[in-house]
Amino acid sequence: MKAVVGVVGSDTIAAVENARKLGRLLAEEGWVMLSGGRDSGVMKAVSEGATQVPGSLTIGVLPTAGAKVAPDVDVAIITDIGNARNNIIGLSSCAVIACGVDGPGTASEVALAMKNQKPVILLGASSAAAEFFRELDARSKIYLANTPDEAIRIIKQNALCGRQPA
Amino acid sequence: MKAVVGVVGSDTIAAVENARKLGRLLAEEGWVMLSGGRDSGVMKAVSEGATQVPGSLTIGVLPTAGAKVAPDVDVAIITDIGNARNNIIGLSSCAVIACGVDGPGTASEVALAMKNQKPVILLGASSAAAEFFRELDARSKIYLANTPDEAIRIIKQNALCGRQPA
Amino acid sequence: MKAVVGVVGSDTIAAVENARKLGRLLAEEGWVMLSGGRDSGVMKAVSEGATQVPGSLTIGVLPTAGAKVAPDVDVAIITDIGNARNNIIGLSSCAVIACGVDGPGTASEVALAMKNQKPVILLGASSAAAEFFRELDARSKIYLANTPDEAIRIIKQNALCGRQPA
Amino acid sequence: MKAVVGVVGSDTIAAVENARKLGRLLAEEGWVMLSGGRDSGVMKAVSEGATQVPGSLTIGVLPTAGAKVAPDVDVAIITDIGNARNNIIGLSSCAVIACGVDGPGTASEVALAMKNQKPVILLGASSAAAEFFRELDARSKIYLANTPDEAIRIIKQNALCGRQPA
Repeated sequence: MKAVVGVVGSDTIAAVENARKLGRLLAEEGWVMLSGGRDSGVMKAVSEGATQVPGSLTIGVLPTAGAKVAPDVDVAIITDIGNARNNIIGLSSCAVIACGVDGPGTASEVALAMKNQKPVILLGASSAAAEFFRELDARSKIYLANTPDEAIRIIKQNALCGRQPA
Repeated sequence: MKAVVGVVGSDTIAAVENARKLGRLLAEEGWVMLSGGRDSGVMKAVSEGATQVPGSLTIGVLPTAGAKVAPDVDVAIITDIGNARNNIIGLSSCAVIACGVDGPGTASEVALAMKNQKPVILLGASSAAAEFFRELDARSKIYLANTPDEAIRIIKQNALCGRQPA
Repeated sequence: MKAVVGVVGSDTIAAVENARKLGRLLAEEGWVMLSGGRDSGVMKAVSEGATQVPGSLTIGVLPTAGAKVAPDVDVAIITDIGNARNNIIGLSSCAVIACGVDGPGTASEVALAMKNQKPVILLGASSAAAEFFRELDARSKIYLANTPDEAIRIIKQNALCGRQPA
Repeated sequence: MKAVVGVVGSDTIAAVENARKLGRLLAEEGWVMLSGGRDSGVMKAVSEGATQVPGSLTIGVLPTAGAKVAPDVDVAIITDIGNARNNIIGLSSCAVIACGVDGPGTASEVALAMKNQKPVILLGASSAAAEFFRELDARSKIYLANTPDEAIRIIKQNALCGRQPA
């Protein structure tokens, strides 16, 4: 079974830039990239980044049958369960990276991943977001990163996705 | 159609006490009380409170078929969609009251309600929670309350559940 | 906790007539009526029938936030999980009555209720539907009825919803 | 985006044999194979078959976080929405192949795929199943096949998954 890393986030310029770089780095590690799959913001950018790497695999978990799929998503899983699909991203990933926590959708994805006891890396989070999620974090599974490289390093150093990604 | 108010929260002593009082107050207004339905913490207490009022109606939206239902839940909706049922509480309510935001489950319920553009009243929230959700709140739908009475007053003053509850 | 009976079916004239009568009969027994909640066909008719009885309670489990709710639904549970909400109807009911099995939506509701080991009463089913579901039925939980009265009698005689409905 | 074919079915010997062969044939066409992902019956066999082909990709859409994943599933999407995940298989596939319709789970998958207007190929179905689903089929999207090869031929001849699979 392949290691899957979830990437979530919203539409700020910083988040989207981080997501694009992150997509490439994840693919270089051989990890499958899982996102919300829509043709917008972080979801679009992270697939774009991953697709630059030969042999990469990007999967999108779409909220509705009608949602437009980002062009670089290789496999679209159409859930039709709306925002409840946010729970599937964390559940299916060995770690979730949040590129900013700037909207309620991303906040729900971080919270649901924590509820499912999955490690979450907050990349470029505001201090209010970092403080809030750290306070909630009884299991020490929240990590803070400033750059995409640092996020990858956290996954590897803590062996969050296995020692040798498949 | 009846007005439905969602109540969420975790297991702290303060949250549970607030929930019990809130259940009674909501039922006195004639509102249907909707919760996560399990036999624990806020879910249990809010139904207990509501049931003291003749003619009250308490509905629980359960995560799994095996989850134990709180004794004062009148109607159990068994979703079997796990934590994704957190999305249903906000969607089905005219307003959601969070008794503390002390765990990731409650945080996800607040965030999902906001994502669905539903008003949320944070009752007795920590300052980190209040600051974080206020920062996320582009639509001015987050309210802060210190007591159950204040939470009810906010719903009525802002006509969040209609002017005259059915 | 109240006994909840699920009613499903499609839009044929016979199904809708049966549903309207069934709604009234279920409410007279003191059972909560659970349906898919939309303003159409069996979902609409069964709520209309139940509402004629003072003290009745009708709950609709809606597929999407945008779906129009039938006028006689007392409480709308907005799932936003699309057709996957068909699984919730059976799970939440002590018995499901299918008014005809004339479309794939109803067929899925019958099959999912069976999968969850819930008793299903096929009311006015075609012979092809009756034969197919009987063949699938390893647990003898499929009943056939020709009239709404017979469906109610089956629930009572087999104590499918408890001996004394609350 | 890659073409995805869903495969469902139950645990009969005939269904499992067909599924194993089908997995190989689908992978040879370059199609992604999507199943319910558990370590049992058709779900297990179809992944086994596909994995024999270099470059194949098998995805499992699991019902719960605790379900055991079949060994040859490359990517596990953990939905935690129970049997409601049956709706995701059809939604995400250009065509669904049912290896027998011998249990209510498979019947629900066929019905939900039809509800979502997806083509379904019944492979080795009983005459009762064939008759029932044909009767429901207002859109002529149900096909009957006797062998895995015939199922593949139906997909190709009707261009159900595009003219040139990716």
